[in-house]
Amino acid sequence: MGTGEYDYPKSSFEQQPHKVAIPPPQPFIKSLKTTVKETFFPDDPLRQFKNQPPSRKFVLGVQYFFPIFDWGSRYNLSFFKSDVIAGITIASLAIPQGISYAKLANLPPILGLYSSFIPPLVYAMMGSSKDLAVGTVAVASLLIGSMLGAVVNANEDPKLYLQLAFMATFFAGVLQASLGIFRLGFIVDFLSHATIVGFMGGAATVVCLQQLKGILGLEHFTHATDLVSVLRSVFTQTHEWRWESAVLGICFLFYLLVARFVSTKRPKLFWISAMAPLTSVILGSVLVYLTHAEKHGVQVIGELKKGLNPITIMDLSFGSQYLSTAIKTGIVTGVIALAEGIAVGRSFAMFKNYNIDGNKEMIAFGMMNIAGSCTSCYLTTGPFSRSAVNFNAGCKTAVSNIVMAIAVMITLLFLTPLFHYTPLVVLSSIIISAMLGLINYEEAIHLWNLDKFDFVVCMSAYFGVVFGSVEIGLVIAVALSLLRVLLFVARPKTFALGHIPDSSIYRSIDQYQNVKTVPGILILQIDAPIYFANAGYLRERISRWVNEEEDRLKSAGEDSLQYVILALSAVGNIDTSGITMMGEVKKVMERRGLKLVLANPGGEVIKKMNKAKLIEVIGQEWIYLTVGEAVGACNFMLHTYKNVEKSGSSGSSLGKETQSDSNV
Amino acid sequence: MGTGEYDYPKSSFEQQPHKVAIPPPQPFIKSLKTTVKETFFPDDPLRQFKNQPPSRKFVLGVQYFFPIFDWGSRYNLSFFKSDVIAGITIASLAIPQGISYAKLANLPPILGLYSSFIPPLVYAMMGSSKDLAVGTVAVASLLIGSMLGAVVNANEDPKLYLQLAFMATFFAGVLQASLGIFRLGFIVDFLSHATIVGFMGGAATVVCLQQLKGILGLEHFTHATDLVSVLRSVFTQTHEWRWESAVLGICFLFYLLVARFVSTKRPKLFWISAMAPLTSVILGSVLVYLTHAEKHGVQVIGELKKGLNPITIMDLSFGSQYLSTAIKTGIVTGVIALAEGIAVGRSFAMFKNYNIDGNKEMIAFGMMNIAGSCTSCYLTTGPFSRSAVNFNAGCKTAVSNIVMAIAVMITLLFLTPLFHYTPLVVLSSIIISAMLGLINYEEAIHLWNLDKFDFVVCMSAYFGVVFGSVEIGLVIAVALSLLRVLLFVARPKTFALGHIPDSSIYRSIDQYQNVKTVPGILILQIDAPIYFANAGYLRERISRWVNEEEDRLKSAGEDSLQYVILALSAVGNIDTSGITMMGEVKKVMERRGLKLVLANPGGEVIKKMNKAKLIEVIGQEWIYLTVGEAVGACNFMLHTYKNVEKSGSSGSSLGKETQSDSNV
Repeated sequence: MGTGEYDYPKSSFEQQPHKVAIPPPQPFIKSLKTTVKETFFPDDPLRQFKNQPPSRKFVLGVQYFFPIFDWGSRYNLSFFKSDVIAGITIASLAIPQGISYAKLANLPPILGLYSSFIPPLVYAMMGSSKDLAVGTVAVASLLIGSMLGAVVNANEDPKLYLQLAFMATFFAGVLQASLGIFRLGFIVDFLSHATIVGFMGGAATVVCLQQLKGILGLEHFTHATDLVSVLRSVFTQTHEWRWESAVLGICFLFYLLVARFVSTKRPKLFWISAMAPLTSVILGSVLVYLTHAEKHGVQVIGELKKGLNPITIMDLSFGSQYLSTAIKTGIVTGVIALAEGIAVGRSFAMFKNYNIDGNKEMIAFGMMNIAGSCTSCYLTTGPFSRSAVNFNAGCKTAVSNIVMAIAVMITLLFLTPLFHYTPLVVLSSIIISAMLGLINYEEAIHLWNLDKFDFVVCMSAYFGVVFGSVEIGLVIAVALSLLRVLLFVARPKTFALGHIPDSSIYRSIDQYQNVKTVPGILILQIDAPIYFANAGYLRERISRWVNEEEDRLKSAGEDSLQYVILALSAVGNIDTSGITMMGEVKKVMERRGLKLVLANPGGEVIKKMNKAKLIEVIGQEWIYLTVGEAVGACNFMLHTYKNVEKSGSSGSSLGKETQSDSNV
Repeated sequence: MGTGEYDYPKSSFEQQPHKVAIPPPQPFIKSLKTTVKETFFPDDPLRQFKNQPPSRKFVLGVQYFFPIFDWGSRYNLSFFKSDVIAGITIASLAIPQGISYAKLANLPPILGLYSSFIPPLVYAMMGSSKDLAVGTVAVASLLIGSMLGAVVNANEDPKLYLQLAFMATFFAGVLQASLGIFRLGFIVDFLSHATIVGFMGGAATVVCLQQLKGILGLEHFTHATDLVSVLRSVFTQTHEWRWESAVLGICFLFYLLVARFVSTKRPKLFWISAMAPLTSVILGSVLVYLTHAEKHGVQVIGELKKGLNPITIMDLSFGSQYLSTAIKTGIVTGVIALAEGIAVGRSFAMFKNYNIDGNKEMIAFGMMNIAGSCTSCYLTTGPFSRSAVNFNAGCKTAVSNIVMAIAVMITLLFLTPLFHYTPLVVLSSIIISAMLGLINYEEAIHLWNLDKFDFVVCMSAYFGVVFGSVEIGLVIAVALSLLRVLLFVARPKTFALGHIPDSSIYRSIDQYQNVKTVPGILILQIDAPIYFANAGYLRERISRWVNEEEDRLKSAGEDSLQYVILALSAVGNIDTSGITMMGEVKKVMERRGLKLVLANPGGEVIKKMNKAKLIEVIGQEWIYLTVGEAVGACNFMLHTYKNVEKSGSSGSSLGKETQSDSNV
């Protein structure tokens, strides 16, 4: 191919090409400090403390851990009005939900109320979200029930079971607070969005299935949570089904779903949906009281103890033989609760345009659960449903949590007898209606459209939970998420570049249809950092690119390949294995009579290449700042070579000459 | 700052900016096929089968699995001469080493000879390396000894112990072959180079420490492998030390080390080092025979059974209660052996300029161990020391392995009685001298210079093995390697770009000292794919960049920030969490009154942004092909805005106007 046929703009090589700079060496301590800062303090939380007098630093420190002292001073009456309305609304939701979820965890129903009293007060002081409403959640409750239930039977030894639940809550709190204190919040990031969607959907399905017990008024029920066991349990005792219970349950479920539908269509009417659980409870209780349905197969809550949370700090026994169970349950439920709470807090903060600090939130969650475990509460977090109601009710600050706590306190002190006749089937309906909202099939469809692998992860987590168990689903989900990260690293993309006509811009041939490849030169972009996990793959893959290109050129009858340019713009980092790999690639290319050229190596890459003396091996003059300049240099050599060839010498000896030339 | 002060070349914006192309959508099946191919067949092993008639395909298939049929037809006499010399040389090393390593695994010494007979024959047919010499290795032997020894005492129940060793070998073989068949060879890549250096060094140290038993002629010795236990065991029984044994051991060790030193200095004299173990064995045996030292505290091998490998296929019992131990041992030792064998094969192939296929090698290793487990052999691989001798002895093909096997066969049939008087202390010296070569302190120093984290990983593996146990060291090393991968993904680099004077090239401010930042515009490069594991971090980090830039501008009294350009050249991929993050960043920037501009999104990124309708959110006109064009557009807007401001309007309303402009 002659010079005229190829429209590459030569100017960029004719002018002096730019040099690739090697960043100045940094002292080890400094680079270590930078790395630690980037790893653990990416958001630079100490920024505001800089250049402040000590007294101011102390105030800022207190405000950092107790944001209430920060926003408290700006609090005013109009905020308070909004917060009172929001607080009462979420209390009306918290009371029936709390009782329902405690049943799900096989814990006494009153614990659900206790857990809506102390933890919200702690969060109001320490939390930085304005919209989060604290309370227990269904999935964590179910997990506590199934993990502790595998070791201790809640009916046979209720005291031990209760003790383990408090200990699990304590360890969950310790874990959460430690993650926050040691700035390890990013661990939660490894639960990908797709994982959480699938896991939550699966858990919601399982929770709904468990409610068949309440709806059908069954006395005996399987302890397993998988679909097959539950359906077998339901359909082997069809003679035990109670139509009274079922009718009541379906009516209330219908009422709750209609209320939710109305609120979804008209956000202004949020209170219809928010109040529906409480009205269901009141209606149901009145109905049972009047008809004495409790004597006709409709089970009721029964007596709830009056009075505030008993202190349980003395119940935490660290010498217990079940310590490992408590720790395991605490870790699993703590992480799940954290993931939900942080995600909820973050999304509302995004909506209202303020920032929350993930690590700080973790400390708040942790302290709230440690305090909870000492005062008869079990695991709490920021549930989505309750926070959404709080948000819609117009809450302004965490004071709405305080208002909710006071409302629950009043209930605990005076109103518990009113729940005596509340039918369990109403609680089941409340749970089902809340859970149906968690099965986010729209998001699953969105994942399918956007990213098939994310969809597979999501579905695996879902089916793992539904057909296996909650733990199996969680393990599958985490393993798949990790596998995905590892695959990301192990199989980076590589693609060939061509130049965009009338420019010196080089872009992927796959993405840009109009780019032109450069004769005799293969330009490859490596699209990821080069590490031990992908070094072997990249070496093989580069060889294959060269093979394929040579085959293509041969079948098209074009000139053979002379240069391979590696565009390293996207190679952000390289480790020792990567450096070794580059040396090997250089050797392989040399063996095949090809010249290896590098374009735009980044700071880390060129620094390590320099340290490993790889720059000398490849040749300083074969490293360019841009792909354009590298192509220019190669073309210049190619044409020189061509012209000499035309004047009669043999090709092979010249190939060597060019090669030895390049080693100058 | 006026127009004149700023030297940005405007031409690139005045001419029509290039459009970012969205790659054409691919059918799901096709993209799935590509992904599977890239993940499992990156080296395209089926390439040679394309467009061939069926008969040729069959021949190629046989040659693929049995490379001997490929190179066998080109074999000639001069190759044979070289291979015979190399084969006899490695046999002279294999016999004493085999006996020594079998002792290390607490197995009968004869197994070391059996294992140098059948597996080399299998490898010669199936392996693709020309230089690998097959045999047992010290580290895997030690691991088998310690893992099986934890369950069964080799002295109390030798039959069961032997059976478990064969079963472990069988499972190691099955694992290796399956990894190869299912193209999962990349799993071995996750053992990083640094990990292997540290682990091997630690294991070599531990093996040397174990030899104190033989050198000092101790009868009782600890079963633990850690430094503390071994030293305590040695120094609590000083009265049992045998000076005869120690003197003999130190003399032979000195002889072996001198021989190795000579060979290292003069590679031509490789045979001095290669023959040294055998001459030590002969010398030692003669010495003991003449002096009857076996009656004065020098332990000898004793009787070795004459005859070829007994068949042990019937001994593999899959109903055994120790099945799980055998499987666990098989997996751990199989992976370790594979990592060493593949690495050794690869390095010699690189040296002699030929290619070996990792997955095919795994199948060969696997078949060799499965066959071995049926014929009284325990785990074999390609040890570095033996392969290096093979290479130095001038081997041409795997025929040298066949020659070695024949030499070992002759030994087994006729010469075993000669080893009756071989003193154990000589075997200990042979092991120590081989192990000292594995403690690669030079490589550790190299790692320290090149990459500090790699050094930490290496040292952790080393100290884990030396002070804990081989298993602990391995777990630490693998965990650290995985942690490193996860940290790589979780904490990508971001850096600010500036433009190189007299060009439209934008590069990192850290790397290039002479680049100039652009007033009013912050250009950030994200240096990794955006995934769920780093989306949260990047969101925080981008905010911090903006904060820091605004602080800097404020303190310098310069114009405030108006545009944030994200250079996405290095973002090779993005998942759903990443897309959500981009949307959030857009929102955050808008809230702060900044305009978000994207430069050079890759194919995957723009495709997913398109699917998620993020392009409309950010605005088609705010996505540019190059950073240069993006800066050009921003500058154009900035100057328009400036000029209007100068003509008297208020800044804030204009800011809004600019913003609404951009939504057109």
